[in-house]
Amino acid sequence: MKYRKLLLLATCCSVPREVISFGPIDPVLSARQRVASSSTTRCMGLKTTIRIVGRKSGSESWLEDACSMYETRLKPANIDVQTEWHKNDQSLTKGVQSDYVRNVPVVMLDPRGKRFTSEQFTDDFYKWMEIGGSRMVFCIGGAEGLPADLRAPLSGHKPILVSLSNLTFTHQFARLVLIEQIYRASEIRKGTGYHK
Amino acid sequence: MKYRKLLLLATCCSVPREVISFGPIDPVLSARQRVASSSTTRCMGLKTTIRIVGRKSGSESWLEDACSMYETRLKPANIDVQTEWHKNDQSLTKGVQSDYVRNVPVVMLDPRGKRFTSEQFTDDFYKWMEIGGSRMVFCIGGAEGLPADLRAPLSGHKPILVSLSNLTFTHQFARLVLIEQIYRASEIRKGTGYHK
Repeated sequence: MKYRKLLLLATCCSVPREVISFGPIDPVLSARQRVASSSTTRCMGLKTTIRIVGRKSGSESWLEDACSMYETRLKPANIDVQTEWHKNDQSLTKGVQSDYVRNVPVVMLDPRGKRFTSEQFTDDFYKWMEIGGSRMVFCIGGAEGLPADLRAPLSGHKPILVSLSNLTFTHQFARLVLIEQIYRASEIRKGTGYHK
Repeated sequence: MKYRKLLLLATCCSVPREVISFGPIDPVLSARQRVASSSTTRCMGLKTTIRIVGRKSGSESWLEDACSMYETRLKPANIDVQTEWHKNDQSLTKGVQSDYVRNVPVVMLDPRGKRFTSEQFTDDFYKWMEIGGSRMVFCIGGAEGLPADLRAPLSGHKPILVSLSNLTFTHQFARLVLIEQIYRASEIRKGTGYHK
């Protein structure tokens, strides 16, 4: 029932008119069928993976505390956010290639990306989830930003570039801003008072 | 010597062309003289006050840990950031009125405000400091945003509205983003590798 509701909402709500191509998707299955056929979906709800270059913060333990808090708060909304740490750009690119093979939408955080309001981000977040069969990936480069090969089309997939702000954040801080916005998206969709 | 260096930098660096009026400022004293005549400046360096409606976070201790970390890191740059908590809009407005009386620039965080890159924020941050005789105030409203009377000219002072992002943040989270940007501004000015 939960996924029916999600699909209904994603269909009814106003979504930005921009059409984003995620490359070849199995033409035989509709989005609804893909959601229904995904065992991951049945077990885990909406699965968001954040791929990031770097190490789980050591000295800045508040960052991990903050991310954990939002991850826990997201569980009742059936949204599972997991962070995958990559030791270098090559490892990140390899991870993204495996996402593309599985037809999972990959959203890259990049200063050249589209800027969203939280409401627009909410609409697109649930749209990406629908396209990916309740799975999607956000990608954050290391201290030097994203590797150039991920900003260009890769294996026939056009990257989706998103910017959180005109301001620059550290990549660790960007992860926190992103998780808070995912939590905000779930609260906006629920219609709670968190987002006024 | 430190203040000479600051004034020199603030004079030499490229600043946005937009002219912002802070209302009546003593025409007899130049900015340099006002810096020299300010006893606060001599004792404490650059003093930034963040006025915010709300209570020092209780359950989200990571927020306080994060802000404290940046405040500590700012000390060697001679930038003192203090947060003043206001229990309601009236108390905030009263605080801002006292700032205006002392001719301290007040920057309001508001979704309608100007959006900056971190480099532009750095230029304006040091410009505001120079105008205020090494003192300035940032103002963050409560959960409902800034009170309307602070967004309008008050006591002959035109408000400076600044927006951190198209995205919405909680006001507590906005305080953290702001402090990180102040720290980033000091690192940009020093030319360290923090801002790449």
